[in-house]
Amino acid sequence: MSTSDRLQGIFTPNVVPLDGHGEINEAETRRYVDWLIERGVHGLYPNGSTGEFTRFTVEERRRIIEIIADQNRGLVPILAGAAEANTRETIKACEHYYDLGVRAVAIVSPFYYKLNSSSVHAYFKEIASHSPVDVTLYNIPMFASPIDVETVQRLAEECPRVVAIKDSSGDLPHMMRMIAAVRPIRPDFSFLTGWDAALMPMILIGCDGGTNATSGVVPEITRKLYDLTVGEQIDAARSLQYRLLKLFDAMLYSAEFPEGFRAALRLRGIETGSGRQPRSCDQELQIEELTRELQCLLAAEGFTDQPVGGCPAGDAAEPAQIETIVHSVLGELRKRGLA
Amino acid sequence: MSTSDRLQGIFTPNVVPLDGHGEINEAETRRYVDWLIERGVHGLYPNGSTGEFTRFTVEERRRIIEIIADQNRGLVPILAGAAEANTRETIKACEHYYDLGVRAVAIVSPFYYKLNSSSVHAYFKEIASHSPVDVTLYNIPMFASPIDVETVQRLAEECPRVVAIKDSSGDLPHMMRMIAAVRPIRPDFSFLTGWDAALMPMILIGCDGGTNATSGVVPEITRKLYDLTVGEQIDAARSLQYRLLKLFDAMLYSAEFPEGFRAALRLRGIETGSGRQPRSCDQELQIEELTRELQCLLAAEGFTDQPVGGCPAGDAAEPAQIETIVHSVLGELRKRGLA
Amino acid sequence: MSTSDRLQGIFTPNVVPLDGHGEINEAETRRYVDWLIERGVHGLYPNGSTGEFTRFTVEERRRIIEIIADQNRGLVPILAGAAEANTRETIKACEHYYDLGVRAVAIVSPFYYKLNSSSVHAYFKEIASHSPVDVTLYNIPMFASPIDVETVQRLAEECPRVVAIKDSSGDLPHMMRMIAAVRPIRPDFSFLTGWDAALMPMILIGCDGGTNATSGVVPEITRKLYDLTVGEQIDAARSLQYRLLKLFDAMLYSAEFPEGFRAALRLRGIETGSGRQPRSCDQELQIEELTRELQCLLAAEGFTDQPVGGCPAGDAAEPAQIETIVHSVLGELRKRGLA
Amino acid sequence: MSTSDRLQGIFTPNVVPLDGHGEINEAETRRYVDWLIERGVHGLYPNGSTGEFTRFTVEERRRIIEIIADQNRGLVPILAGAAEANTRETIKACEHYYDLGVRAVAIVSPFYYKLNSSSVHAYFKEIASHSPVDVTLYNIPMFASPIDVETVQRLAEECPRVVAIKDSSGDLPHMMRMIAAVRPIRPDFSFLTGWDAALMPMILIGCDGGTNATSGVVPEITRKLYDLTVGEQIDAARSLQYRLLKLFDAMLYSAEFPEGFRAALRLRGIETGSGRQPRSCDQELQIEELTRELQCLLAAEGFTDQPVGGCPAGDAAEPAQIETIVHSVLGELRKRGLA
Repeated sequence: MSTSDRLQGIFTPNVVPLDGHGEINEAETRRYVDWLIERGVHGLYPNGSTGEFTRFTVEERRRIIEIIADQNRGLVPILAGAAEANTRETIKACEHYYDLGVRAVAIVSPFYYKLNSSSVHAYFKEIASHSPVDVTLYNIPMFASPIDVETVQRLAEECPRVVAIKDSSGDLPHMMRMIAAVRPIRPDFSFLTGWDAALMPMILIGCDGGTNATSGVVPEITRKLYDLTVGEQIDAARSLQYRLLKLFDAMLYSAEFPEGFRAALRLRGIETGSGRQPRSCDQELQIEELTRELQCLLAAEGFTDQPVGGCPAGDAAEPAQIETIVHSVLGELRKRGLA
Repeated sequence: MSTSDRLQGIFTPNVVPLDGHGEINEAETRRYVDWLIERGVHGLYPNGSTGEFTRFTVEERRRIIEIIADQNRGLVPILAGAAEANTRETIKACEHYYDLGVRAVAIVSPFYYKLNSSSVHAYFKEIASHSPVDVTLYNIPMFASPIDVETVQRLAEECPRVVAIKDSSGDLPHMMRMIAAVRPIRPDFSFLTGWDAALMPMILIGCDGGTNATSGVVPEITRKLYDLTVGEQIDAARSLQYRLLKLFDAMLYSAEFPEGFRAALRLRGIETGSGRQPRSCDQELQIEELTRELQCLLAAEGFTDQPVGGCPAGDAAEPAQIETIVHSVLGELRKRGLA
Repeated sequence: MSTSDRLQGIFTPNVVPLDGHGEINEAETRRYVDWLIERGVHGLYPNGSTGEFTRFTVEERRRIIEIIADQNRGLVPILAGAAEANTRETIKACEHYYDLGVRAVAIVSPFYYKLNSSSVHAYFKEIASHSPVDVTLYNIPMFASPIDVETVQRLAEECPRVVAIKDSSGDLPHMMRMIAAVRPIRPDFSFLTGWDAALMPMILIGCDGGTNATSGVVPEITRKLYDLTVGEQIDAARSLQYRLLKLFDAMLYSAEFPEGFRAALRLRGIETGSGRQPRSCDQELQIEELTRELQCLLAAEGFTDQPVGGCPAGDAAEPAQIETIVHSVLGELRKRGLA
Repeated sequence: MSTSDRLQGIFTPNVVPLDGHGEINEAETRRYVDWLIERGVHGLYPNGSTGEFTRFTVEERRRIIEIIADQNRGLVPILAGAAEANTRETIKACEHYYDLGVRAVAIVSPFYYKLNSSSVHAYFKEIASHSPVDVTLYNIPMFASPIDVETVQRLAEECPRVVAIKDSSGDLPHMMRMIAAVRPIRPDFSFLTGWDAALMPMILIGCDGGTNATSGVVPEITRKLYDLTVGEQIDAARSLQYRLLKLFDAMLYSAEFPEGFRAALRLRGIETGSGRQPRSCDQELQIEELTRELQCLLAAEGFTDQPVGGCPAGDAAEPAQIETIVHSVLGELRKRGLA
């Protein structure tokens, strides 16, 4: 693999727009793909956790990739979520997505049953040995069997097809341990973080990029954070990371993931429709409240108008204020530390 | 619903025999159904966790129920695992299994994503409102979103279609809390435990029975434990519960669930084949060791010969010895407690 | 050790009455000891978790045992909590409590730092090798390093001084695994459960008794439940277990343990005073609400009057109703199971 | 408080040297204090978790602070661990340490019992309202009740005495959330990380420094990492962070914390003695193995000779190699990201 082909940058794990009947809204999905690419995301990542891959049928998962690959017309690399019921079905999906021209597939570690490390290894090895397309491991220990450092190292050693890991644990030292174990033997191997809350520090310690749900809603910010960080404009990057954290937390920790991302995306003008999981009354109320809060956060970034009734005064000012203080604290540390 | 129709007794969550190509072995599945019914299980529970429902395709899950319903010929009630990708697909499965004459379906709580209580409620309510067949809630918090006491109570109140809960938490006071909350409002509601290690005490505090993986391997013992317990033959039941615990632990905690159950079933003459999850070398070794241990445990119960080389002396003697001691301890307590 | 000396029955882990200055209220503590013994508890267990041993100084912990041993005048066996900062200090406490005539000490597994099994073993072995008095292991995995089955077995084999384990995990199969591992080699070894919610089933599978916080508040009920269970009056015992569960849950899961027990004890006429942990406003409100709820539960048992304003109608009736239903369910199971 | 007085830089949570009888080795403790200050740590932090405060008596904890304050002669600020059995005892300790001239105390959140947020708040508020000396909150959720963001914010608002938090969770976004919540209202408030594995990124997102156990063993490295990071020499800092991570992991995850730190310190010539927790045979073996591994790691840094028999070839080379690759990856990202 040439290094120019390496998995790098910000990949968007897109939500799937649905119509009033809960069916895939193809037209809006196509419009959404264009919208994302125009705003600078480096790649697309359909059928991820944000894309609710478990709530679609086999046929629908395939159709989602087909629509997106078709609309993308080769513009950006696609990382296609390809986990199916078992290795045989997953390998079939890999073959199909290969034919569609995706850059790589992403396979989540076995879920429901919690498997130990050697079984996780056996699972990925079986798939990687038969897939015609590059494979990205997907570690999300809050939902699926964890992929430990030794397993990543063994797979990187044994399987040239395995070219990357997407890690959504948010555990920074864990990412460093993986990088320390794998980079010396596989310099081409990519490390992508799925934890937007730590994107800047993750890149600073060596990640190649991220698959970040925020990039599906505010691609301008996530992309800019990436650029500032790789450009080592530390102060500006930090300030933006604080702002992104606020958005990320608001969208993630309310109303059952990924409904917060759907709600925010509607504010940006994408008709996401309702998700497939039936909504509780609690959730309806949470979405209403959250939408207002998100509108204020997005207005502070210039992406929407403020909601009727306005927003709390502090919100827009705060990040700047924090930055000023952090900056002065670092100034002090510097004076003292280097004295 | 007449009380005679109530879900009661031991339901077997069967493993699915596979052939050398990993395909469903229909002939052996049919033979297994007959074997189980002959040995006295009260009902069958295909597409449970032991049945690895997540590792089959939609079509295969349907075919498993079809084979089992056909072979059963109405002899025992069938509890059909019916969880699919979303509520619409799940309801379709309920309709199909209703046409096949199953007694009820069992729906596992949403998994992968961890949902809060009100979303778990909304999920089951949607399904129960559209299912033509009775619904059993399936709580297995180590794998899926937990179903809490209040949620069970609300569903029992609101949905006549919801007639039972299968709880695999093994948490005895939790079972009592559910019984205390639901029985006064729904005397027809059944409580089934999926935790074989506590079958006797669970029945003694009011459960109607269990969906017990051990009953797929040693139906004679699980059934006898049930009979002794409901007959309040406490000493004999306790002794058998200790023996079942040993078998349960051996099969459950080794070689990745449910491979231990497959291994044991092979010793009983059912050709289960290998599971679909690729095996690691560690697992191969564990299965070999486990098989020897299981053969000794099964030999002690009279179900198989001892393996070549024999078994450790203590194993068969132990349960009797424990019983003797427990018995004498209880005698003492009685003397003292009632003095 | 003669079997008559065996640790058996219900030991009360007493709260420590405090005066208005937060000092140990000696007079009330003495009155409380008499009150408990009059109501039939088999033993006393000062300096347990309910006794908030970590919130007293070394000197106060000693004084608590001195007061209780003195007031007890040899009437019932005392199990004295003796864990101190390290093994040397703990052994000194064992020596002192031995001089005071306690039946045994109870030592909680190392806490704060979470130790692995072999270190837990080394810790208890060091203490048991130097203690002049019998030692009870205390397993409470939600607060301290877990003591696993193999560690209990090794300590039972190697240390004659270790005569019992108090287990507050509430995990019934875990208790069975310990009993199965230890009884054949140490028939004199006692198993006490600290989980009142499962007292009846724990005794039915072989426990010798319990160290139960409810026995400090409603000793009449906990003792009667014990007597009914060892007398195998299953229906009556089950009914009482359901009532005790309600009281246990109310006292345990509100207002920060063990403040619920303090609140309930005040209703029984023991002046417990406030605990030493500063109270939050939330907690004040919870205690007020809880006190009303407890008064209704205690009134239903005949221990107090109903609070001003009365109690919800259902509460007293419910347990009887549950029992009727459970009874009829078991009748059905019996007919069917034994047919 | 003047900003020059602010808690900043690297504080060493020292282990306590013990003699052959397990008593505090005063002479070696004094020598160790000098050794640390000579090597550039900014402050001392006795009676932390590394200092095993729970395993000493009240009198010993006081003596440890007395020795260290005396030896320090005002050279660097002291952060004194002051948690005792209850708030009254803790406040007494605060008063004593104030008299000894410590810069601030550090109080761990209540442990053993797991308290909810409002009780954690009440606990710290009581102490902060009576302490004559500044208070640092100590959050270590793996051992003690967690201190959540809202609680830190409330305490920062209400209690001028509370001037800092030491957070050992290692959760980077959690640190950012605290900084975002507190800095705007309390610019003087300090944030210290106890998680050496993430020291560089923690400082880059705004921490004032750390209380880092590695600084007790390799103060030269921890201090240099701090200096490089505040000086924004990102490449050099990252490289050093990878090397520190290796040492940190080796010392932390073997042989029961903090025995790995004791073992490493012996290699640096400080006679730490054995800890007070009795050692298991497993642990003896682990310490032996670990010591060899640590000697290689320390030799690679130039602090010791290689052990007899030498070290694996790769070890010294690796960090440089990783750095080269990370560097080239970032170069690529930069070209692409900013294009």
